Amino acid sequence: MRKISLWALASLALCTATAQTKLIGFTDANAARQATMEKTFDAQLQAQNLDTWMKFLSSHPHHVGSPQGKANAEYMAALFRQWGYQTEISTYYVLFPTPKTRVLELLGSKPYKARLAEPALAEDRTSGQRSEQLPTYNAYSADGDVTAELVFVNRGIPADYEELERMGVDVKGKIVIARYGGSWRGIKPKVAYEHGAIGCLIYSDPADDGYSAGDVYPAGPFRPKDGVQRGSVMDMPVYPGDPLTPGIGATKDAKRLDRKDAVTIMRIPVMPISYEDALPLLQSLGGQVVPASWRGSLPITYHVGPSRDKVHFKMEFNWDIKPVNNIIAKLPGSEFPDQWVMRGNHHDGWVNGAEDPLSGMVAEMEEARSIGELAKAGFRPKRTIVYCAWDGEEPALLGSTEWAEDHQQELQQKAVAYINSDGNGRGFVGASGSHTLEPFFNQIMEDVKDPQTGVSIRDRRYAKSLVDADKAGRAKLLANKTIKLGALGAGSDYSPFIQHLGIASMNIGFGGEDDAGVYHSIYDSYDHYTRYGDPGFQYGVALAKTAGRVTLRLANADVLPFDFSSFSKTVADYATEVKTLLETQRTDVETENRLIREGLYAVAGDPKKGFKVPKEKEVVPFLNFSALENSLAQLKTLSEDYQKLVANGTSLPPEKLRELNEILFKAERSLISDGGLPRRPWYKHEIYAPGYYTGYGVKTLPAIREAIEQRNWKEAQEAIDTVSKTMQTYNAQVKAAVGLVSPKVF
Amino acid sequence: MRKISLWALASLALCTATAQTKLIGFTDANAARQATMEKTFDAQLQAQNLDTWMKFLSSHPHHVGSPQGKANAEYMAALFRQWGYQTEISTYYVLFPTPKTRVLELLGSKPYKARLAEPALAEDRTSGQRSEQLPTYNAYSADGDVTAELVFVNRGIPADYEELERMGVDVKGKIVIARYGGSWRGIKPKVAYEHGAIGCLIYSDPADDGYSAGDVYPAGPFRPKDGVQRGSVMDMPVYPGDPLTPGIGATKDAKRLDRKDAVTIMRIPVMPISYEDALPLLQSLGGQVVPASWRGSLPITYHVGPSRDKVHFKMEFNWDIKPVNNIIAKLPGSEFPDQWVMRGNHHDGWVNGAEDPLSGMVAEMEEARSIGELAKAGFRPKRTIVYCAWDGEEPALLGSTEWAEDHQQELQQKAVAYINSDGNGRGFVGASGSHTLEPFFNQIMEDVKDPQTGVSIRDRRYAKSLVDADKAGRAKLLANKTIKLGALGAGSDYSPFIQHLGIASMNIGFGGEDDAGVYHSIYDSYDHYTRYGDPGFQYGVALAKTAGRVTLRLANADVLPFDFSSFSKTVADYATEVKTLLETQRTDVETENRLIREGLYAVAGDPKKGFKVPKEKEVVPFLNFSALENSLAQLKTLSEDYQKLVANGTSLPPEKLRELNEILFKAERSLISDGGLPRRPWYKHEIYAPGYYTGYGVKTLPAIREAIEQRNWKEAQEAIDTVSKTMQTYNAQVKAAVGLVSPKVF
Repeated sequence: MRKISLWALASLALCTATAQTKLIGFTDANAARQATMEKTFDAQLQAQNLDTWMKFLSSHPHHVGSPQGKANAEYMAALFRQWGYQTEISTYYVLFPTPKTRVLELLGSKPYKARLAEPALAEDRTSGQRSEQLPTYNAYSADGDVTAELVFVNRGIPADYEELERMGVDVKGKIVIARYGGSWRGIKPKVAYEHGAIGCLIYSDPADDGYSAGDVYPAGPFRPKDGVQRGSVMDMPVYPGDPLTPGIGATKDAKRLDRKDAVTIMRIPVMPISYEDALPLLQSLGGQVVPASWRGSLPITYHVGPSRDKVHFKMEFNWDIKPVNNIIAKLPGSEFPDQWVMRGNHHDGWVNGAEDPLSGMVAEMEEARSIGELAKAGFRPKRTIVYCAWDGEEPALLGSTEWAEDHQQELQQKAVAYINSDGNGRGFVGASGSHTLEPFFNQIMEDVKDPQTGVSIRDRRYAKSLVDADKAGRAKLLANKTIKLGALGAGSDYSPFIQHLGIASMNIGFGGEDDAGVYHSIYDSYDHYTRYGDPGFQYGVALAKTAGRVTLRLANADVLPFDFSSFSKTVADYATEVKTLLETQRTDVETENRLIREGLYAVAGDPKKGFKVPKEKEVVPFLNFSALENSLAQLKTLSEDYQKLVANGTSLPPEKLRELNEILFKAERSLISDGGLPRRPWYKHEIYAPGYYTGYGVKTLPAIREAIEQRNWKEAQEAIDTVSKTMQTYNAQVKAAVGLVSPKVF
Repeated sequence: MRKISLWALASLALCTATAQTKLIGFTDANAARQATMEKTFDAQLQAQNLDTWMKFLSSHPHHVGSPQGKANAEYMAALFRQWGYQTEISTYYVLFPTPKTRVLELLGSKPYKARLAEPALAEDRTSGQRSEQLPTYNAYSADGDVTAELVFVNRGIPADYEELERMGVDVKGKIVIARYGGSWRGIKPKVAYEHGAIGCLIYSDPADDGYSAGDVYPAGPFRPKDGVQRGSVMDMPVYPGDPLTPGIGATKDAKRLDRKDAVTIMRIPVMPISYEDALPLLQSLGGQVVPASWRGSLPITYHVGPSRDKVHFKMEFNWDIKPVNNIIAKLPGSEFPDQWVMRGNHHDGWVNGAEDPLSGMVAEMEEARSIGELAKAGFRPKRTIVYCAWDGEEPALLGSTEWAEDHQQELQQKAVAYINSDGNGRGFVGASGSHTLEPFFNQIMEDVKDPQTGVSIRDRRYAKSLVDADKAGRAKLLANKTIKLGALGAGSDYSPFIQHLGIASMNIGFGGEDDAGVYHSIYDSYDHYTRYGDPGFQYGVALAKTAGRVTLRLANADVLPFDFSSFSKTVADYATEVKTLLETQRTDVETENRLIREGLYAVAGDPKKGFKVPKEKEVVPFLNFSALENSLAQLKTLSEDYQKLVANGTSLPPEKLRELNEILFKAERSLISDGGLPRRPWYKHEIYAPGYYTGYGVKTLPAIREAIEQRNWKEAQEAIDTVSKTMQTYNAQVKAAVGLVSPKVF
């Protein structure tokens, strides 16, 4: 009752103010109704709920297969049901290794046995739950027992190995130690393995998120000396999800690969360690002093190695099949129940996972609760809203991937968009996603207030970008005030939706004033989060307001707010980037080869160091971009036409409008190609993909860009042609949309 | 006898090969003779001599006023005499403070008394000469006894105080601790004093030249935990030399200022400390975490302060007048005894000073010995060569400045050029100087071989620049292969010659593969240098070959090799730079003020931090550069004319040639203005000066550039007019030179 009266009050107060609102995709009348609804939606949000739920959900470790993980799923499912959602717990059965044996020791004259443990802190109430915590490890490491010299490989990315080669250092048969950062962690053992290493350690240097970054926990938010970043090293740039069931749902009876045939499992043992454990290992390294950019901030001289003494490193895992429990909660649409607006966040953590993922999860829950209240009060959305709480995101996007694979046909038919969030904190809004949603999301950012400053989250984000930008960046921002969406790479549960199924997606979160160093450690706790992450949960509420608006507007729009022009401009920019990349590579190779041929490298090197002159590189050919350029030129024209005519959309007869909306939300499907990307067919989106050698880091026009980066000219040319064909299919969709809104129809 | 026969042999072998050599400034016949002479000069150089002399000269601490300093002066004077030079020890009497009391302690609950001492090392034979060593201190600090809170000011340059202001931190009444680097050290206490600090500590962060840079001494060349960088903090950007006798020689009876009236003595106590001593002080700092670029690599979180506990800092000095003993060794010219080619290096060190300055000093000595041998063998140079070994460079360029001030009239008449060196080591040639000498020096670099690679030192320098350059830099270097001379700022004994007297000068040295962290510490020793600096003294010999050629060619040239075109182009570039600086400032201020006015800074800042919105800045006006542009356009034409006609020079009758040469070497004199630079009249050169707020760092067109930087628009306009007038005077000299070489003369 109380809520109804609140609602009535809000609608009265706001109907005048919002009458003129122009909402993208809405008729004026529906826009006013929507604005009123959103005000009520906002008014119903209560920070206290986020606090209560986070406290419960993070009260014990809740990783895949844990009792608390199961309890959390049931707790959330019960709440979603209570809020009026048709809720089910959808369970899949996935390979989830946990360590049986972990040994790391430095042998020789100054032996050291790594502690591999994070101690409890009196100031952190959940940090002492030792028996329930997963040990510090990297999931999907290989089993292995190796003894070898150690080599320091900086971030462990391909460029670091090029530098090592110039220094005359080989990792073949060695164990490498890499520093966290500079790439997604799984890239490090993969590249190490490709170079012949037999083991890989990954440590958190204090320069990155330890004492150099700021005071360490509990005095401050940063990583204490024993803190370890757990995390997956599965080769997710090939495919995420259960390694044994690529492309299909890991149901109980699914046909499974033999583990040895699962290519995404690392081939060498890998383990993350603290900087306390890394110190004696790094001190044991001999050889040359590292290049300046490789230095961390431990109080030592960093050397590349090899180590004077050998390192013994042993990992053994329990290769168990574990259940992952997704919560799927539906609020059926009043007009278009077969059009699904999807909204998700994962619920599993590595340990207590307060920030990652619960800070985003509890915001999503409060958003769902408020929408449930709206529905109860008579404001049921037109389209079906599907709230998801994914399990097993941390090991490999397990829950979302298996569910999406299992429901792929239904999703391809019904999914309007997928809106994701994950960890959240104090600061500035950040969003990535399909660029068709860019103007839509820019409008939403105007309508949400920043809790600390009272300006819109758009204005605060813009101010921050402008203040932080260099001169060129500032000029650009002053000339064009649109907040660009980032492109989606990998790193959270949107991957299967956008990259495998071609469902327009977004990822939204706040941050930038919540810097910390407890990521994937036992210290990512309620105590830490409420002190340093988002005290008072005001940014949790801001996330609920933002993602809630995205969800509600997509659910209620008359004409779905997809904008082809933004997409067209963005892809044209990507095309320019890859052309420039090729040009740059050409001139770089020319100069580089000249320096090598003329002996300048040889002469410039220090003869006392093991400097090796690089080899001459193959001359970079010219490629034929014309097919791509033509298809993008066509898209430009078509998208401008659609832009001019879209206002006609709302006047269409219902059947035509339905047809238009279906074209709009399905257009993204035509950006996926059947064959997928070279060597990783699971990734089918031709515009966005996680980098094969960067992991989280997105590669746009990935097939073209990565072929150029890898100097595979034949494949680059083929990729240009494939993308051009994909764009033509897309253009046909846009053309159909233009046809529907063109005056001749009337 | 042996040497004569060697010489005969060499001339026989080489006369054919060198007959065609085109040497800038020489007739073909004289060029061949010069080339032969240089071959012999080279052949006579013996690395063993450098070793022997460095061993003796660095055997005990040899700072100003020390017994070894006096012994070294006498030792060198005896050698110069032995080599045939008219040698005198020229003594001046200068204020040279040494510490009587040094106290630094952290008070409060975790008290710490700084050790302020560098321990002896078994691996370093001279490091234990404790009783002879100057303690670790900064010369020309004030006396003082202060107790206050501590604030960390990063490098302690003006930009750091702007950042502190934004962070809401004030140093008024505080002691500051600054990190070495980022400016000449004397800037740090000067700027601290200007901001109201009452004491200044300067420490060596291991990030700069300690364990982060490489292994520490004795395991490697870098600064050990107790190593301290001594050094002067006199306000030399106002005037160098004895603080009591500005502008005049500090002879025994010179009229001296009262010490309290000497503006170059610091007003607050200052002391350098090791990172071992800095650590507890930095750990005591509270307040905000420093910006990322301020972090050092001690294993702590760096905070700005103020400190939780107070610091007690006391300095008391013996303010003694001490003798400085310069060695002046002349080899009178056979044809033009009143034209002096001057060559100098200092001989005093802070302690044993092997690298700084003896590595350069012993190269100069070997050069002088070989030229002495040449003279004995009948190859006496045409012009007088003056070898100088300066005392008291370390505290304040004392010896060179007092001697130059004392001999200013004679020098203005006679000095053709002054060629300086200082510390030297393994690596690449580096040279700065009057740009009229740029083509001349480029030719010399072609003629000296790099000892490690066998290519010319020019080619190795060029290769290194190219390999290290970014894309834009590479394109520039590939388009123009001239090695640019740097501009002379401050930092060694060329200052009085070029900046006070307008004598064309150069500074030459090798380095880049001799990185170390023992600068101005007891560990800059023979043991360290022969292990890490230039083992085998091959680069000492290379320096002798290089600077020896500069000296010999200047001494023997038919037409002095000054090139107005290089100078004209360089000054035109400087003029473009200051115009661009003004433009950049204008657009920066516009953008900055807009961000402030529109509240963007306020909105972007973290409300939980003490961020203060900066104040709007005065709009940058347009200035009238036309007078400067006109005078530079005229110089361009004149210098091109001279370039075309200079070949006629050698055909001039002797009196006219003498007149031409006098114009050539005196042209640089017309670049000095009587009034000197604003607020520092001792600095009279209108093109090059050390920066008022950078110290070593040169400022070109200093009056214009610094007025713009300081936003003093009136002074900037006046400076443009002054420089334009100076350039007109210079142009008149070039015009006179053109007149002499023009056909009409014949």
